[in-house]
Amino acid sequence: MVIRVAGIADKMAKNQKQIAISEFFEKNKHFLGFDSLQRSIITAVKEAVDNSLDACEEARILPDIKVKITKIDSKKDILELQTEDNGPGIPQKSIEKVFGQLLFGSRFHAIRQSRGQQGIGITGVVMYSQLTTGKPTHVLSKVANDPTAVSVNIGLDTRKNKAVKSEQTRIIWENDDLTMKEHGLRVTTRMKAKYQRGRQSVFQYLRMTSIVNPHAEITFTDPDGETYHWPRVTERLPSKVDAIKPHPHGIELGQLQRMCRESSDSRMTVFLRQNFSGVSMRAAKELCEAAELEITMKPKSLKPDDVRALLEAFQGEREVNGKAIKLLSPPTNCLSPIEEMLIKKGLSKTIDSKFVATMTRAPTVSHGNPFQVEVGLIFGEGMVADKHVEVLRFANRVPLMYQQGGCLLTKAIESVDWRQYGLEQAGGKGVPKGPAAILVHLASTNVQFTSEAKEALSDNEFVFEETRRAMLEMGRGLRKHLEKKKKMAKTREKFELINDILPAIAEKSASILERPIPDLAGSITKIMSAVICNESTTWNKETKQVDVSITLFNYTSRARSYSLLVNWPEKSGGEMVGNERGGRKEAMGIWGWKIETLEPGEKAVVEYSLSNLEKGDWTETEVFFRGSQDVIGATKLDEKMLVEIRKQEEILNQSDVPSGDNGETSENNEDGVAYEPGVVEGDSGQTTLFGGEN
Amino acid sequence: MVIRVAGIADKMAKNQKQIAISEFFEKNKHFLGFDSLQRSIITAVKEAVDNSLDACEEARILPDIKVKITKIDSKKDILELQTEDNGPGIPQKSIEKVFGQLLFGSRFHAIRQSRGQQGIGITGVVMYSQLTTGKPTHVLSKVANDPTAVSVNIGLDTRKNKAVKSEQTRIIWENDDLTMKEHGLRVTTRMKAKYQRGRQSVFQYLRMTSIVNPHAEITFTDPDGETYHWPRVTERLPSKVDAIKPHPHGIELGQLQRMCRESSDSRMTVFLRQNFSGVSMRAAKELCEAAELEITMKPKSLKPDDVRALLEAFQGEREVNGKAIKLLSPPTNCLSPIEEMLIKKGLSKTIDSKFVATMTRAPTVSHGNPFQVEVGLIFGEGMVADKHVEVLRFANRVPLMYQQGGCLLTKAIESVDWRQYGLEQAGGKGVPKGPAAILVHLASTNVQFTSEAKEALSDNEFVFEETRRAMLEMGRGLRKHLEKKKKMAKTREKFELINDILPAIAEKSASILERPIPDLAGSITKIMSAVICNESTTWNKETKQVDVSITLFNYTSRARSYSLLVNWPEKSGGEMVGNERGGRKEAMGIWGWKIETLEPGEKAVVEYSLSNLEKGDWTETEVFFRGSQDVIGATKLDEKMLVEIRKQEEILNQSDVPSGDNGETSENNEDGVAYEPGVVEGDSGQTTLFGGEN
Repeated sequence: MVIRVAGIADKMAKNQKQIAISEFFEKNKHFLGFDSLQRSIITAVKEAVDNSLDACEEARILPDIKVKITKIDSKKDILELQTEDNGPGIPQKSIEKVFGQLLFGSRFHAIRQSRGQQGIGITGVVMYSQLTTGKPTHVLSKVANDPTAVSVNIGLDTRKNKAVKSEQTRIIWENDDLTMKEHGLRVTTRMKAKYQRGRQSVFQYLRMTSIVNPHAEITFTDPDGETYHWPRVTERLPSKVDAIKPHPHGIELGQLQRMCRESSDSRMTVFLRQNFSGVSMRAAKELCEAAELEITMKPKSLKPDDVRALLEAFQGEREVNGKAIKLLSPPTNCLSPIEEMLIKKGLSKTIDSKFVATMTRAPTVSHGNPFQVEVGLIFGEGMVADKHVEVLRFANRVPLMYQQGGCLLTKAIESVDWRQYGLEQAGGKGVPKGPAAILVHLASTNVQFTSEAKEALSDNEFVFEETRRAMLEMGRGLRKHLEKKKKMAKTREKFELINDILPAIAEKSASILERPIPDLAGSITKIMSAVICNESTTWNKETKQVDVSITLFNYTSRARSYSLLVNWPEKSGGEMVGNERGGRKEAMGIWGWKIETLEPGEKAVVEYSLSNLEKGDWTETEVFFRGSQDVIGATKLDEKMLVEIRKQEEILNQSDVPSGDNGETSENNEDGVAYEPGVVEGDSGQTTLFGGEN
Repeated sequence: MVIRVAGIADKMAKNQKQIAISEFFEKNKHFLGFDSLQRSIITAVKEAVDNSLDACEEARILPDIKVKITKIDSKKDILELQTEDNGPGIPQKSIEKVFGQLLFGSRFHAIRQSRGQQGIGITGVVMYSQLTTGKPTHVLSKVANDPTAVSVNIGLDTRKNKAVKSEQTRIIWENDDLTMKEHGLRVTTRMKAKYQRGRQSVFQYLRMTSIVNPHAEITFTDPDGETYHWPRVTERLPSKVDAIKPHPHGIELGQLQRMCRESSDSRMTVFLRQNFSGVSMRAAKELCEAAELEITMKPKSLKPDDVRALLEAFQGEREVNGKAIKLLSPPTNCLSPIEEMLIKKGLSKTIDSKFVATMTRAPTVSHGNPFQVEVGLIFGEGMVADKHVEVLRFANRVPLMYQQGGCLLTKAIESVDWRQYGLEQAGGKGVPKGPAAILVHLASTNVQFTSEAKEALSDNEFVFEETRRAMLEMGRGLRKHLEKKKKMAKTREKFELINDILPAIAEKSASILERPIPDLAGSITKIMSAVICNESTTWNKETKQVDVSITLFNYTSRARSYSLLVNWPEKSGGEMVGNERGGRKEAMGIWGWKIETLEPGEKAVVEYSLSNLEKGDWTETEVFFRGSQDVIGATKLDEKMLVEIRKQEEILNQSDVPSGDNGETSENNEDGVAYEPGVVEGDSGQTTLFGGEN
């Protein structure tokens, strides 16, 4: 027995060998999203389009992307996919590695927001094509300075994870209009796949991509030859993202050991300031002091215990003068949120609805990685009411279409008790029901998916909490909207009674009795006994402006005096025109008017228009009032809120977070705000400062 | 602009570089199951225990596994994990590769059922330990012939995917009783992790592992020093699995191209017969004929079109004499199901309940990969009734504890309308509610997980269909059980009325009237007017046998004559003893008795015991009858069913599938059954032949 067992141990050891990463992913192609014929074509489109969008963004080019799918053999389910962009192209010598070698890429070590990260995606497509059709993938690439484009076939030697190149030539690449293409990339590949329509389809993927990439022009030709076109809705490129250094709060011990070992820096302070973000000169010195290290030490010479002490100082477990060392937050110019107005634009383009709320939360940090959550909610009668609301999930501007149930973003939605916000929800848990759609976008330097197929986010308490908070805030906005609608509906009933039915009765009675028609004003104020505000916000096709009209009726028996205030899209670049009543700016995005004293039965009208907007940008105006008597249809102004808005506005003006154009490197931004490690920052959403809707 | 874009293309290309697989998984450690501190320790235990079970199974050793978790630093969440087995050990020179190199293993290319496949798991643990604590993992390994064990620390150079070895020595390894350990492996590692209790815990993982590995002895010491012990319940090792060749139906074009290119075979027939399973000499010739290839051709010399033609012949798209070529099913001795009796044993050990149904479906094939589904269902009053039933998922004898919602096995359960089988289920969809637990085990040569963390199975229509069918069959068993219980409850009420209340009334009236007590037999038969069967199956602690007693009452006014039949665990090795009435075997697992004619009011009793079983193995006996009048509490025998059982029994005796000891290699088993490519085979479950329960 013992001898037999010994033989087996040897035999087992002999059978062991190294597996190439390409063999691994060929066998586990479902990890990459190639688990069914229906899904494979979506995955291929996704990888190609993500690459195009990333390359254009990096090269600051407004992307123009064409996707075409052709049926080659219906019986054997062979499709041809061709994607073309106007990106920077790929230099000849790099093509084979980009397309024919797994885990080859530029973004793996860079800490910044990008769609692709691992250098797997497009090579996975080439591999799947080769596996299922035996054919290589054709690449046509032109970079701006070359007179010709390179045309080459790329296959993959999976045993070695190396590209196999064939039929390489250089050709003139002409555009449809026969001018020479300046730069761009075209990828043509055949694969075993099935084209389908519906909720999980190439069409839907591209449609969702266009929502969160409003700067992209996308054209799609389906296997029936039908062409769909999603035009560019903004000429503004997403803000440029800069790669940042890792933040000390996100470092693991093993990683720090390696960084020290590989460092050639001459002293600790240089090492700390040049390899990490958020470390000022003062902080670098304090870190050394706390870790009991000389600032002149070479990082390379640190012993295991020294590294451990340094990590403890990073994590606030070692103090200087009884205080943990304050580190700055990592800079957030590595993130590129979509921003609320563009989300709204994208959503409105897709679904026509009255109520659209969006919000972009302030950037925050999880384990040293900056991230930012954006959400949108559409509610409207046009949508199906008795089904679960549609959930649109995105990560770094890429739509997530599978595994909704297993995704962190869905779990955050499910954790909210939507019943209190006016949606149906069994037991106060799960995806709510109602005529609504919810959009969630996570922008992060390190999106953690549950698998390489990149379809669902894995659990992370910080991202969960941020998303949940955003949902709660949007929910409050929805509730307000629904309450207001209900209140207005009641008032409208009363209104009709007074303005139509009462006078009709008076007229009729008068004519029967052959008496003059009585003056009803007194009776009406008695019945209503309220001040009523009516607001209308409509898109004017001719002037291409949003016309806003607010009427204030005094249906009480006493004279009344008010100030009216409204929210308006100042931050998004809207302009207020035709505002004949004047008034004044009360805070960023808040305008106010003093209204003359209204006698019983009198009314006042405020009118203005908003220019520099597009249809759907602004669909509802919230009206606030200052005054003693309640106004139906408006909200009493909370002065504290106004103060809060003014304060936040100041902070925003200082930190200048969303622009990302201040050119600062991470080492310099010492005037940032210090934050506690691992603590989710407070309710500092930038946009829903004034109620949840706008 | 053009020049700028050109510069960017070059700059982007320059930043690209190759990423090591170890860097990839270090950054994406959540792909490997290290996404939270709570989960990390479970993942580590899982990888170590899976390896131990696999190694013992391959070396044909009954595993004895010890797991110990110790708290090293509660504040910093540092745990130490030590696992020890009595497996074959790992030879000194292999240790560093097994523990310190990703994608190094023996099972990647082997087509057979095993827990580990990719050569990632345990190296992932070493990597995570190093990353979070900076410490290497200690390995102590002894193979049978060496006088000493090797003791060595293993770390990982993630930049190169190479092991870093330190402090290697050889020592005497003593067991607790101070005898020398003959062979085995001990792994000790420290990591950042949190120990927790509950549904997702190390305890639960080991408990579930013991259910599906009844041949393993597992001991667990938790951080509080408490020790749990799951004893071995069978000395029978899982049947030995042999690696098989790929089946032609599961081959992709790219794979076939590579096989041809790398082949050194001298002729096509040799190539086809030696590299594929299911290809007989005749089939090899026919495949060449269909693909228009000479059988003397060298595979290496095949042109792309030749390979394509061969694949078409594989897939039945090319015919010979108007017929597709018949290929044999792949052999199924590459699978090792748990088998129903052991599942039942495992389930009963955990949950004490009256009704336990299990079934092992016949092996079948998806894309050339053999697989087999086994299911179990427990139903009982002791369990929580108003919650979702507990779902226990397993793949190749490994418990799956996360991502239940995203798993194919769960989806198959959810697709069944359980309301018709007596469980609550909102809308006839989703996981049902009720006092029940459902177990599903997939045994497969190629388990496709949604990610490398191996927690959920990705979609596969064949596996889905098999699982669904197994559920439907079990559901029918459950319904029968519940109907029977309901019927018996009613009868029992009547019984009480007749046997207790009627005689009491008669006695009372007689005493009041001072008359003799009347004979009630006639009245009782009139009221009941039925033949009633009472069955009891109970575990006899003293004799360690199952005692079965069946009583047949004739409560009708005429004489009745019946045969009674029962099911009993003959296949699982049970023995029938003390059966004084004799009777005869009617089929495998079915015994029958001719009962003497019963006059009105008479009863007959059948009694016997079952030995060679353990508690919980057999908890309910199903009784059938032959005869004209219905019997309450027994089922009328369907003679066609009996014939069917006898027929299947013959087939089973021929194919000898579950034993796996026939020593046939895939090339020889030409007497297998031909099957259609891609078609799920019919309802050929082996065990619930006679009703769904037993």
